[in-house]
Amino acid sequence: MDKKNDAITSRDVDFAKWYTDVCRKADLMDYYSVKGFIDYLPYSYAIWEEIQAYLNRRFKENGAENVYLPMVIPQSLMAKEKEHVEGFAPECLVATIGGGQTLADPLIIRPTSEIVFSELFKKRISSYRDLPIRYNQWCSVVRWEKTTRPFLRGSEFLWQEGHCLFETEEEARENALAMQQVYNECGRDLLAIPFLTGEKTEHEKFAGAVATYSLEALMHDGKALQSGTSHYLGQGFAKAYGIQFLGRNNALETPHQTSWGVSTRLLGAIIMVHGDDNGLVLPPYVAPIQVVIVPIRQDAEGVLDACKKLNEELKAKGIRVKLDADDNHTPGWKFAQYEMKGVPLRIEIGPRDLAKGQAMLTERVNGEKTLVPLEGLAEKIPGLLHDIHISMYQKAKENLENHITDVSSIEEMNRVLNEKGGFCRMAYCGEAECELAIKAATNGATARCIASRLNEDTTLRCPICGKPAKIVAYFARAY
Amino acid sequence: MDKKNDAITSRDVDFAKWYTDVCRKADLMDYYSVKGFIDYLPYSYAIWEEIQAYLNRRFKENGAENVYLPMVIPQSLMAKEKEHVEGFAPECLVATIGGGQTLADPLIIRPTSEIVFSELFKKRISSYRDLPIRYNQWCSVVRWEKTTRPFLRGSEFLWQEGHCLFETEEEARENALAMQQVYNECGRDLLAIPFLTGEKTEHEKFAGAVATYSLEALMHDGKALQSGTSHYLGQGFAKAYGIQFLGRNNALETPHQTSWGVSTRLLGAIIMVHGDDNGLVLPPYVAPIQVVIVPIRQDAEGVLDACKKLNEELKAKGIRVKLDADDNHTPGWKFAQYEMKGVPLRIEIGPRDLAKGQAMLTERVNGEKTLVPLEGLAEKIPGLLHDIHISMYQKAKENLENHITDVSSIEEMNRVLNEKGGFCRMAYCGEAECELAIKAATNGATARCIASRLNEDTTLRCPICGKPAKIVAYFARAY
Repeated sequence: MDKKNDAITSRDVDFAKWYTDVCRKADLMDYYSVKGFIDYLPYSYAIWEEIQAYLNRRFKENGAENVYLPMVIPQSLMAKEKEHVEGFAPECLVATIGGGQTLADPLIIRPTSEIVFSELFKKRISSYRDLPIRYNQWCSVVRWEKTTRPFLRGSEFLWQEGHCLFETEEEARENALAMQQVYNECGRDLLAIPFLTGEKTEHEKFAGAVATYSLEALMHDGKALQSGTSHYLGQGFAKAYGIQFLGRNNALETPHQTSWGVSTRLLGAIIMVHGDDNGLVLPPYVAPIQVVIVPIRQDAEGVLDACKKLNEELKAKGIRVKLDADDNHTPGWKFAQYEMKGVPLRIEIGPRDLAKGQAMLTERVNGEKTLVPLEGLAEKIPGLLHDIHISMYQKAKENLENHITDVSSIEEMNRVLNEKGGFCRMAYCGEAECELAIKAATNGATARCIASRLNEDTTLRCPICGKPAKIVAYFARAY
Repeated sequence: MDKKNDAITSRDVDFAKWYTDVCRKADLMDYYSVKGFIDYLPYSYAIWEEIQAYLNRRFKENGAENVYLPMVIPQSLMAKEKEHVEGFAPECLVATIGGGQTLADPLIIRPTSEIVFSELFKKRISSYRDLPIRYNQWCSVVRWEKTTRPFLRGSEFLWQEGHCLFETEEEARENALAMQQVYNECGRDLLAIPFLTGEKTEHEKFAGAVATYSLEALMHDGKALQSGTSHYLGQGFAKAYGIQFLGRNNALETPHQTSWGVSTRLLGAIIMVHGDDNGLVLPPYVAPIQVVIVPIRQDAEGVLDACKKLNEELKAKGIRVKLDADDNHTPGWKFAQYEMKGVPLRIEIGPRDLAKGQAMLTERVNGEKTLVPLEGLAEKIPGLLHDIHISMYQKAKENLENHITDVSSIEEMNRVLNEKGGFCRMAYCGEAECELAIKAATNGATARCIASRLNEDTTLRCPICGKPAKIVAYFARAY
């Protein structure tokens, strides 16, 4: 597709610049006067609301209930879970003054809420009959980041965090995996984004977790984006915060905990998976405007009426449609605008079309134009949007599959990542030292998730330390 | 209705204790380890989500779009609007450390976001064609309060805040009044709560506003609760933060601003307007569970099947129904539970009912029991819930109207407030000094809102200072 819009940099010229250009020109966000904080404008927030609606439905099916818990964590409380506090302390925003007085116990603005939920859980369970508990919360969290980028890494971002408590390890692990699967289906069915899913390595897992299950997406520039995580937390938080219950055998037991979340990072994923040199390309089910109707020569008899009729028909079908009859702008100007904003389907109706009883359809994803009969058009749109969704998902899936390369040395990995990017699948020992060596030698590639675990009788060796290989992992340079 | 549940204090014995008892026993909230912060549990959060759904629909009809803006305000930025900062500074939570470093410009956790929106508006308008802008945001805000009470006054609470920008004063005032009306209809159509509506006096208006339009509800104990406000902000923020646009006459102009909000205070209003000595009484359209089905002798043939059938029929009608077939608890225990939780309608089906083809309906609001035919029952439920809503609203409206008393002196006001509470309507000069004198002499009564403005030729005098009366206001002791 030709680049029609000079307002943004080409992806191949400067991908980072292209990304921020799209964020700004598609009116997704604006920068705030404090570094790392952004304004989520209506167009990005509406996408987030579609994600919320989908996930709220799925969480509910999974038995989770929404709650809202405080945004502050006393420093003294945070200190109780050692691994967790070490992981988060360096990036905390800390309030020290309240109502003009210095606070005896400073308050950390939540970077995540495992501790806050643990405090609540402690009070809410006494017997195994009180389990399981499945809570979710939609909120923002604050992490004081040095390098920030809209949606991808910010000092404050929006997310949901699920926090659950179970009687047994089995149930808890099952929950963590089930929620990873919910996120995976959100990618497949809503965002048109395929994920690599797997467990994080010891070195990469969440601070305080026993196991972290991750979802990794491939961006257009060949880098990976961690798009969601689901943690089996074991009993660490429960022990640190004194959560116990009377078990079936009348003895005090410690429950097993999970937490899982996705954030407005998903907006970054949508931009970088689907976007092109003309701007955003939105998957239909998450698009705030799914169909835009642009009248051509709208002063000509019957044109505007035909547009309005179609507009009402589509609205009645629950399609998010916009009729742009603003006569301050030319159709061409509007085309570029809605392409920039990634509207999946454009319908043009002009006097000549009208005379022939037809309309011009243009798909954003590939620019394909089709003349279709106006008669019965509204009935066809839901199916068309579905086809667009499927084709966007397939395209992204093929791209992902074409960017998984088996490698067996650091040099090979580095070469593949330099040449084509994507994920390198490699067997190695699974130790943090070797991951650090890989990172240092490949300009930052990290183990994104485990592809498989090897049997003890494998003859494969770790290409770094030479010890027997234990796991096969996907490595990539990542956001 | 007899008090059947000893778990809570009677309203007439100790209203404040009754209130917190209901909050806890109906499982609406729990206390957090930092004073003034609470956990919003699933049952209260679900009510809030119903309020959100209603208001989101109404805001959208009114042209407002949802956004999300940062939760921090640099202290230096806050200082620019003098009245505003003086109003809020004493109750700010201030972050002074980020990422382990002392912040050069400390960050205030937003107590409200006029400033944050003003910063955005400044960048988004250049011409009158960019106006109006109508934004809304759902978030939590932090105000460091000395005396706190669940839902009514907390250090952190959930709310929505609308922020709009207009070309003219007329449009802005119209918007502020329209949003007050939306809140009023939310009370009438969703919460079954009637409000007194009017403008705040000079002394009581929002810090930084030209005019504050308020909604005041009457609680069961005779005290008023400010339940929502809508502000015409004039040009104060726009001037302080440099928001300008090129007007129709090609000259730089300053826009007119509004802001409007309701908070989880509305949950407190629902509890204190409708609740009784058996606990919560929820208006049907906001109840997370609208109908509970309790089987009697559920082991008897056909009982559970009949309950399940009705359950499915009600679900299919979009009714929020719960079938409680837990056989660890007796029906009597369940009755008390769902009464405590304020479920509007209970349906019992037992073997004897079933034999006669009928079911027992009990309305939460008045305890009335009716035997009804099972045949066609599901069809009748939506109408029944509507009738309950109307009767709850009427009851609250009569109570409000019976508690508005015209008075003409401080002594009379004090006596009326001591004897029956509610609102005292009184003419006075409208000056802050006299409001302070009234407050001091009446154990805290304040002007809640203006009932009417008097003509200059009135012969009425202010009963405090003796000057000509200028306004008639509703006074009340308030939360």
